[in-house]
Amino acid sequence: MIPLDDRGLLLGDGLFETLLATDGRLVEAPAHLDRLAAGCAALGLPAPEAGEAEALMVRALAEAGLTRGRAAVRLTYTAGSGGRGLERPAALSPRLLATAAASKVPTTPARLMVSTVARNAGSPASRLKTLSYLDNVLARREALAAGADEAVMLNGAGEVACAAAANLFWVRGGQVFTPALACGVLEGIVRRQVMAAVPVIEVAAGVEVLRAAQAVFLTNSLIGVRAAASLDGQPLAGSDLVAEIARAVR
Amino acid sequence: MIPLDDRGLLLGDGLFETLLATDGRLVEAPAHLDRLAAGCAALGLPAPEAGEAEALMVRALAEAGLTRGRAAVRLTYTAGSGGRGLERPAALSPRLLATAAASKVPTTPARLMVSTVARNAGSPASRLKTLSYLDNVLARREALAAGADEAVMLNGAGEVACAAAANLFWVRGGQVFTPALACGVLEGIVRRQVMAAVPVIEVAAGVEVLRAAQAVFLTNSLIGVRAAASLDGQPLAGSDLVAEIARAVR
Repeated sequence: MIPLDDRGLLLGDGLFETLLATDGRLVEAPAHLDRLAAGCAALGLPAPEAGEAEALMVRALAEAGLTRGRAAVRLTYTAGSGGRGLERPAALSPRLLATAAASKVPTTPARLMVSTVARNAGSPASRLKTLSYLDNVLARREALAAGADEAVMLNGAGEVACAAAANLFWVRGGQVFTPALACGVLEGIVRRQVMAAVPVIEVAAGVEVLRAAQAVFLTNSLIGVRAAASLDGQPLAGSDLVAEIARAVR
Repeated sequence: MIPLDDRGLLLGDGLFETLLATDGRLVEAPAHLDRLAAGCAALGLPAPEAGEAEALMVRALAEAGLTRGRAAVRLTYTAGSGGRGLERPAALSPRLLATAAASKVPTTPARLMVSTVARNAGSPASRLKTLSYLDNVLARREALAAGADEAVMLNGAGEVACAAAANLFWVRGGQVFTPALACGVLEGIVRRQVMAAVPVIEVAAGVEVLRAAQAVFLTNSLIGVRAAASLDGQPLAGSDLVAEIARAVR
């Protein structure tokens, strides 16, 4: 339980990470904790101690009885209690929390829908996993209501940014593309793995690049690589390259 | 205390209202609760029962010993527990919370600074008081670090939207202007009162309108009307109209 004056609750003032765990072991924990620390620097929060964070996550897995198979671990870091309205207190006492839940891999390719909810590339928060994630909640909600599985979010300039809970890539002419971080993109851990596995061109591009693509795929720490079946109801052809990339990053 | 799986905490999935209370009495409670209900409709949440919300706020005032003088009451409404990642559970059980704190009126005019953190006019959340308020926290933080009191937020198109925790107005040639709601603006209760008291033109305009203004002022439920002394260190001339408007809405 957390107190009612926690700034994560009141203002979305904090960060999170979602990690995959297999058989009780955290996958890519150092990369996640490094990213969390970088986010803390951007928000002006002291980074949590990595050892403490890992221990907390391992304990959450054990307490949830998830030491076998796949699980999702959520690490939440709030700016803590105190302050006056928007302003943080002079002495910060952030809160670190972890929870774990079973995690299934989706076995079908994703049906994507272009969301009307914009990604705010003009805020540093658009490149961080923050507790202010309502835009993503709304985008996903819109996609589900339209019979899709996941939303594609464009920034205010109409450039493709990401999915509601994944990075986005597309293939055209045998070349892989992804939105540049400046478009309002979280630097995903699997995004980085894909870029290390195959040449990827980072671009700022409108949604027409997705409509013209042979294949579109999503990445995040829980799903790894997931191909997209369609965009706004229009089927995507697909590419063998997506399966190859999925194998390369596993 | 609230549980760790609350969606307000984890994802900023919820809304809030900040009310002024004087001598234990809530000011403009029906207007605040109507706005909260409209926000719930926008987010797909059932609205809380108004009587229950009022009773909760009155109790928070009493428990904090704030039945004399001015107090700020914060009403927080979260999407509750459950769901899987971004997705809400099929059966929602939202949480309603209230806290109260003493509230002082600032006695000096505000020193404003134009923030580098953009307002996301492309999201419905930019017209709501949501629990995803990190952009505002960051904008205020930037203003304080620069020696100012409050931030002016522009949307991605460079149009003036609002302050980090207030609506924004300016005076030029004896005429009062304010950003249109479509610029990414919360429809403030005092904003509405100002517009009922004097003719106000709603516009979409760049920050140059503030630099060319005779006077700039802020409004919210706690401060009422507060004049601005300067913008990015440049003094603003001021206008008798601001004091007249302040009297009219009290």
